[in-house]
Amino acid sequence: MHPTKEKIGAHGTAELLEPLDSFGRRHLGADAQDRDAMLQSLGLASLDELIDATVPFAIRLRRGLALPKAAGESAALSELRAIASRNVLKKSYLGQGYHGCVTPPVILRNILENPAWYTAYTPYQAEIAQGRLEALANFQTMILGLTGMDIANASMLDEATAAAEAVSMALASSRLTDPTTVLVDAACHTQTISVLTTRAEALGLKIVVDDVFQFQPDMGVFAVFLQVPDTFGTVRDFAELAQKAHQAGALIIAAADPLSLTLLQPPAEWGADIAVGSTQRFGVPMGFGGPHAAYLATRDAFKRSMPGRLVGLSHDAQGRPAYRLALQTREQHIRRDKATSNICTAQVLLAVIASMYAVYHGPQGLQAIARRVHSLTRVLAEGLIQLGHTLRPGLFFDTLTVQLASEERDAWLARAGEAGMNLRWLECGVGIALDETTELSDVAALLKVADVSGVPDLNALVAQALCENSALEARKTPFLTHPVFHKYHTETEMLRYMRSLEAKDVSLVHSMIPLGSCTMKLNATSEMLAVTWPEFGALHPFAPKDQTEGYAQLMQQLESWLAEITGFAAVSLEPNAGSQGEYAGLLVIRDYHHARNEAHRDVCLIPTSAHGTNPASAVMVGMRVVTVACAPDGNVDVADLRAKAELHSQELAALMVTYPSTHGVFEEGIREMCELIHSHGGQVYMDGANMNAQVGLCRPGDFGADVCHLNLHKTFCIPHGGGGPGVGPIGVAAHLAPYLPGRQQDGIAKRSGAVSAVSQGSASILVIPWMYLRMMGPDGLADATRLAILNANYVARRLDSYFPVLFKGSGGWVAHECILDLRGFKATSAEDVAKRLMDYGFHAPTLSWPVTGTLMVEPTESESKAELDRFCEAMISIHQEMTAIENGTVDRTNNLLKNAPHPALAVCSDHWDRPYSREEAAFPAKWVREGKIWPSVGRIDNVWGDRNLFCACAPVEESAG
Amino acid sequence: MHPTKEKIGAHGTAELLEPLDSFGRRHLGADAQDRDAMLQSLGLASLDELIDATVPFAIRLRRGLALPKAAGESAALSELRAIASRNVLKKSYLGQGYHGCVTPPVILRNILENPAWYTAYTPYQAEIAQGRLEALANFQTMILGLTGMDIANASMLDEATAAAEAVSMALASSRLTDPTTVLVDAACHTQTISVLTTRAEALGLKIVVDDVFQFQPDMGVFAVFLQVPDTFGTVRDFAELAQKAHQAGALIIAAADPLSLTLLQPPAEWGADIAVGSTQRFGVPMGFGGPHAAYLATRDAFKRSMPGRLVGLSHDAQGRPAYRLALQTREQHIRRDKATSNICTAQVLLAVIASMYAVYHGPQGLQAIARRVHSLTRVLAEGLIQLGHTLRPGLFFDTLTVQLASEERDAWLARAGEAGMNLRWLECGVGIALDETTELSDVAALLKVADVSGVPDLNALVAQALCENSALEARKTPFLTHPVFHKYHTETEMLRYMRSLEAKDVSLVHSMIPLGSCTMKLNATSEMLAVTWPEFGALHPFAPKDQTEGYAQLMQQLESWLAEITGFAAVSLEPNAGSQGEYAGLLVIRDYHHARNEAHRDVCLIPTSAHGTNPASAVMVGMRVVTVACAPDGNVDVADLRAKAELHSQELAALMVTYPSTHGVFEEGIREMCELIHSHGGQVYMDGANMNAQVGLCRPGDFGADVCHLNLHKTFCIPHGGGGPGVGPIGVAAHLAPYLPGRQQDGIAKRSGAVSAVSQGSASILVIPWMYLRMMGPDGLADATRLAILNANYVARRLDSYFPVLFKGSGGWVAHECILDLRGFKATSAEDVAKRLMDYGFHAPTLSWPVTGTLMVEPTESESKAELDRFCEAMISIHQEMTAIENGTVDRTNNLLKNAPHPALAVCSDHWDRPYSREEAAFPAKWVREGKIWPSVGRIDNVWGDRNLFCACAPVEESAG
Repeated sequence: MHPTKEKIGAHGTAELLEPLDSFGRRHLGADAQDRDAMLQSLGLASLDELIDATVPFAIRLRRGLALPKAAGESAALSELRAIASRNVLKKSYLGQGYHGCVTPPVILRNILENPAWYTAYTPYQAEIAQGRLEALANFQTMILGLTGMDIANASMLDEATAAAEAVSMALASSRLTDPTTVLVDAACHTQTISVLTTRAEALGLKIVVDDVFQFQPDMGVFAVFLQVPDTFGTVRDFAELAQKAHQAGALIIAAADPLSLTLLQPPAEWGADIAVGSTQRFGVPMGFGGPHAAYLATRDAFKRSMPGRLVGLSHDAQGRPAYRLALQTREQHIRRDKATSNICTAQVLLAVIASMYAVYHGPQGLQAIARRVHSLTRVLAEGLIQLGHTLRPGLFFDTLTVQLASEERDAWLARAGEAGMNLRWLECGVGIALDETTELSDVAALLKVADVSGVPDLNALVAQALCENSALEARKTPFLTHPVFHKYHTETEMLRYMRSLEAKDVSLVHSMIPLGSCTMKLNATSEMLAVTWPEFGALHPFAPKDQTEGYAQLMQQLESWLAEITGFAAVSLEPNAGSQGEYAGLLVIRDYHHARNEAHRDVCLIPTSAHGTNPASAVMVGMRVVTVACAPDGNVDVADLRAKAELHSQELAALMVTYPSTHGVFEEGIREMCELIHSHGGQVYMDGANMNAQVGLCRPGDFGADVCHLNLHKTFCIPHGGGGPGVGPIGVAAHLAPYLPGRQQDGIAKRSGAVSAVSQGSASILVIPWMYLRMMGPDGLADATRLAILNANYVARRLDSYFPVLFKGSGGWVAHECILDLRGFKATSAEDVAKRLMDYGFHAPTLSWPVTGTLMVEPTESESKAELDRFCEAMISIHQEMTAIENGTVDRTNNLLKNAPHPALAVCSDHWDRPYSREEAAFPAKWVREGKIWPSVGRIDNVWGDRNLFCACAPVEESAG
Repeated sequence: MHPTKEKIGAHGTAELLEPLDSFGRRHLGADAQDRDAMLQSLGLASLDELIDATVPFAIRLRRGLALPKAAGESAALSELRAIASRNVLKKSYLGQGYHGCVTPPVILRNILENPAWYTAYTPYQAEIAQGRLEALANFQTMILGLTGMDIANASMLDEATAAAEAVSMALASSRLTDPTTVLVDAACHTQTISVLTTRAEALGLKIVVDDVFQFQPDMGVFAVFLQVPDTFGTVRDFAELAQKAHQAGALIIAAADPLSLTLLQPPAEWGADIAVGSTQRFGVPMGFGGPHAAYLATRDAFKRSMPGRLVGLSHDAQGRPAYRLALQTREQHIRRDKATSNICTAQVLLAVIASMYAVYHGPQGLQAIARRVHSLTRVLAEGLIQLGHTLRPGLFFDTLTVQLASEERDAWLARAGEAGMNLRWLECGVGIALDETTELSDVAALLKVADVSGVPDLNALVAQALCENSALEARKTPFLTHPVFHKYHTETEMLRYMRSLEAKDVSLVHSMIPLGSCTMKLNATSEMLAVTWPEFGALHPFAPKDQTEGYAQLMQQLESWLAEITGFAAVSLEPNAGSQGEYAGLLVIRDYHHARNEAHRDVCLIPTSAHGTNPASAVMVGMRVVTVACAPDGNVDVADLRAKAELHSQELAALMVTYPSTHGVFEEGIREMCELIHSHGGQVYMDGANMNAQVGLCRPGDFGADVCHLNLHKTFCIPHGGGGPGVGPIGVAAHLAPYLPGRQQDGIAKRSGAVSAVSQGSASILVIPWMYLRMMGPDGLADATRLAILNANYVARRLDSYFPVLFKGSGGWVAHECILDLRGFKATSAEDVAKRLMDYGFHAPTLSWPVTGTLMVEPTESESKAELDRFCEAMISIHQEMTAIENGTVDRTNNLLKNAPHPALAVCSDHWDRPYSREEAAFPAKWVREGKIWPSVGRIDNVWGDRNLFCACAPVEESAG
């Protein structure tokens, strides 16, 4: 990439003057020399030769992508800075579930801006993920304490989808014979009602939006959904209603603001069965709507129908307590079309921040924040009343509704705008929500908006407003009593606590994470920087349009670039996870059929090799899943596909297909498959999980797909955050564009049913793919894809003679990942290999998916040849260890693999009775001697943990150690 | 700190509405409960009782400090943001050793913004500092490659002081019988000449500033100082001059821009003997002048007179290569008044960044950057010539001098200002220095400044300018050939490399670093955030005043606050290290005597307990050191002081005294000592190293000190950065104010002789103490001091029965630190304890200073009681281990202490023949089982390393491991 000396001087050109901070060479792992070496080892003359042999000619894109030319890192950041400056930061009093808050700087810098946290993967390999698992256990414990419930999961995508999941739970748990209806209180947040409506309609459920106190038995109501404080800020007593509902066999789902719960009676105590809400205001920037961590908690009785991830406690091989994901088998992993939810992710990074916020403040600190906000609101209320205004009656926490005639309301809003504030427009007046960032001077400014001339004396006002105890404080039960919420209130202690957790986890800062289908590529710093710029972080999702022009530009550009990359007509950024993208994509197909009076089309064909979320999503949109077989070579069995399509021709709604296949192969017949489905009136949904193998080489929209979701957190560099956030936009062909969810723009009318709380999805992290695309440009992107394929084939070739590569394309090549077959070994399992890899300093590849007994390796384009070699050497070394076991040379149960991983306490134990040496256990390779990454616990007992389910912080043992 | 429930409601007050992000409770380690527990264990009723017993009544400040009331974290950051906005960012072409550059984002985030790097201490305990030692070895190797020299140190404070140190070296190494004169080329940077002049004058040397080609033998010239490229940008050939100088017995000192050296012939090759320069443009923000890392390199022959820190290679107890500070004994540690330099620090954090910049770019990358800057400069030169302008003749690298009449020059500068650019004002015209951030469009804009109407066609210009090879490229010797400069050019590899080094080091993110006299307190995130704001980071030190009003406000406030804290009339922020502060303070005293026609006063009294820098500094200002004895109780022997003062009454210049004493005690007689010195016409210089025990309780200016330096990197929260930057401002009484170095302001005329390259010192990190003082307020600061004293006494009391506390005040109390006497143990040393502490996860206290065979512990106010207890338990446990050795229960040479520390490779070795168990070695305490911090190497052999001095990157061993 650097001009050589020969290029200069006599042949001096302007090229020499180009910026040198080109990003491609920083993102791509292999330089020219490494590429040549890999090509040579594969017997190839060029990278093009490999691509020609791998990607079917019939579907190749025969031109470069029409994207802006790559910008250098500095230039791209400058451009983004200019976009950011088009967003206007005003003081937000808009509320509705989104509140200004302070991310404690020590958490900001050491978690949100720390690659050791944000590049970590989902904690499936729990022995090297104890840090974030503990943080998530803290999150769950915090939610339990606030809500009074028995069990809470490790976070949900947003409050609105958490609400919809709660409804599905209630349906699955209902004891009614004909559960048909959800009664939703009219004073809930609009976006929540909107998502509830979308989700219910697809399942054929009835949503009645009304005053919940109108509840009557015999309405077929299986769930009552309500909110406290409600969207107008009012705190009502639902205890009697709950009793009535329970008697009628309906469950109560309560959306509750977690900060208010530090003062209010916990929902479980007044009768709620499920509680949901957003923890955004616990230190997570509003970010124009996301990402944030929502919560979901319930009573013990309903725990087995709870969606999402759950962290539970178990113990390791040495008997020490250890966390891991609990009940992992209950959801889409095995239930597929029996699933009631397609949720397979969480908002881990955001849940971690929210939990750390609680750890740092402790219960007293949280209560003090709540009391202060509440007190300021009381002062504001007193002032408004003194000024002669009418407030919506009832108790309030931090939000007031001022009842105003429309002209007066408009005058208020205008004055507020001029004074740099956003108030909420309401039909009946204005809404004002205060938050952690509000000062007394802000209250004074708000009173000035209410009445320019007559602001009362502030000191007197404070004295009057606060002269009595607030009637709000009904909480009796202590919460956050675990020591973790009491020990780390100084910055020094907090810093060390977070760093001690970090030290237990393996992330991309340590070594490659070769997860098939998960594309753990580089998350570059310059992509991440803007996430915490206030211009992107501090915006309320419902801020007026003229204050969010920067975001509009960013999203419009990103949508158009993604459309070009996929070959589609339009893109929606609304879905805030891949699973949400699947759901939204299938909804589009469903609505399309409905609009054409073909509502009877409800059969969704899904190959057996599909991701488990595919059938779950299909069920959620009300489709029937019909399974299509796979041929022995791993490809879709085209004959079976044809037979099923013909059989269901009249009812055919869609085919869901992953491309390249989940077996890591570019199937030759993809175009024909699409045509077949179309000929039977169906639509083709393409799962975009493997888009990293296509970008710049071929486009789903070109070879027949009608819808495709994209995983921005895989292919487009949003980090995994330890298990979330994800972003899963969808692209659609022109005929489907009218059915896209999301904002109205580009003159294309889009449907209004919402799949996420806000139409801009997880807006604040869209800067990451924007930067990636802007810095890579069309050539860089295609290069990345080519290199991802080269790396995968290099690894496949190096390991094939040890672990046969299970599926290959017609030319013997794989796509961007390869499946290593371990089934020849009877004495050791894929899981044993995964655990043993930890001793070598590696995170395991994808385990036993899509084929049991295999490892799926995806090296991505970002890893260097040196790192690939290191990984291959680890695998080859483990192969030797496995062979010795298989041969009977070493014991079949007491060996390096079965006992893996080997934590330091075990290796250094004074009692060593293993038939192998300590050095073999802990230092099996040269690089481990130079920088050992210790697993913090030994092999964790999952079965015991699921049988003895415990999902809060580990009890403190006095005599530990 | 949180209002309790009782406080609210009926007694509701505005207090409830105060911001809750008060910083004091985050900074201070002990809450009320912990304080009570500690006081109780000390038999005290209150903290005031302790302070009354500890700090002599006679010197107590009987009022609160007159400082602004504490602001919450958010409010303080907002205030600082407002100050920042008063700095104006224009494109800088000012050059003169300060250049715009790009900090690669991955380095910015993972080093400069990473507490694991910035809170680390100086790597004296090398076994837990291999990460930063390797980074510094990279720095030294980089400098060796660029300069062609044989040995380079681990960085200097700035280019100007490095130049002055080089002159001292040359003097010490001179073979002339009467070395009197330094010939300084007139085309050197002004600030360098200024510092050279100050330093030389104090030593009685003659500085001749002239065209160096006028050099003649027999001038008494022992050093010729010159610069390449010079301050006008011209690259001249000094080879013949060097020959001539050498023949006359003079050494050549060359200041050289490191980026230019990637193209130019290395100074060593054309005859330079010492090379100095600034590595700022290797990725370090300009920061309005600092901090940056300067370099100093020389030939093998002069290595023993080289100042500063030097990282060298040795091996550990297991024979593995390991870095450590080499030749540590050669400077102030033992030589005191024989020292030729008082330098005892480096700019480690900045040197690490510069070295990482080289690691990331590699030699080809650096050359490409240099070629691009040079090429853009050639295009600009060609354009200016085509526009009819006259350039200063000669070769150039990146800087041009345009010769203009004064009216024309002023018109240029005005046009540039309007276009958002800063050009350099020169008597003869304007200077234009390009840099890494310059684009071709900037060149076009510069040409437009030169001639509004007639800008030539840019493409044609480029072709013309670059049609021939540049005559500049004379470098033949390869550089940065070590693999470390070739392996980490992708962001993924770079990230992992930096993180792998980080993982080897212990810093404040792990555990307390109880270093006596070094005050390793919390470096809070909100103090650090602004350091990397562009408004502070991107300013050139010589930017016009109207663009730096924010900095002016910040510095004026900080100066006034520090003046109030110390009780002085005026403060200068210029000295950029504590040692510089000492030097500057003594210079002030010297100038004061000179001004009063008492130039003969040159005796400086220094107690034997003083920091080693004290006598070194005195020597550097031309004073004679007279040592004052200490009494057996550690206090200054007042009788001896009186005797020496009387003996030297006529020549008495100053007393240097540390307060509280280096023995950690508030000496009762301090006021009397000051009066005694004054009565003999001397001035009192107070070493402010222990200011952390005084802030808010007493003030040096009140009890008789005339000058005091402050360590902003100790008491005022600037982090140690792994061994720098430091900042050492001085405060002085009113009668000395006219002699302060630094800016003219407050109507006080200050002297012009410079002690640092820029009068604002290390400006960009002044935001840290500003935030600290702003957030703590007068009460918080006094509280911090009180708590520091409480913590020290708590530790002293807990450990006294194991390790007697060596010095106590009259009431039996210590100040903010305590000295633990280990001399009762004959079989183990303080060093053994230091190494054994690593096995417990702790960094050792200060070792064998001020008394050999002791450990000096300073817990600071930031550590929690839990952490103090953990440290005490480690010490008590080690005491048991020592006792067993002393008793003869265990072997005297093969035991837990002598073999400490125990790295994982040793503990897990298959060959374990120690008389103790592995668990005893590695897991001696409960907390270690919960989170082990492994030393990365075993005990390092310092003697071998010094005998076999090797100060570059470790050679790559093919067969390692």
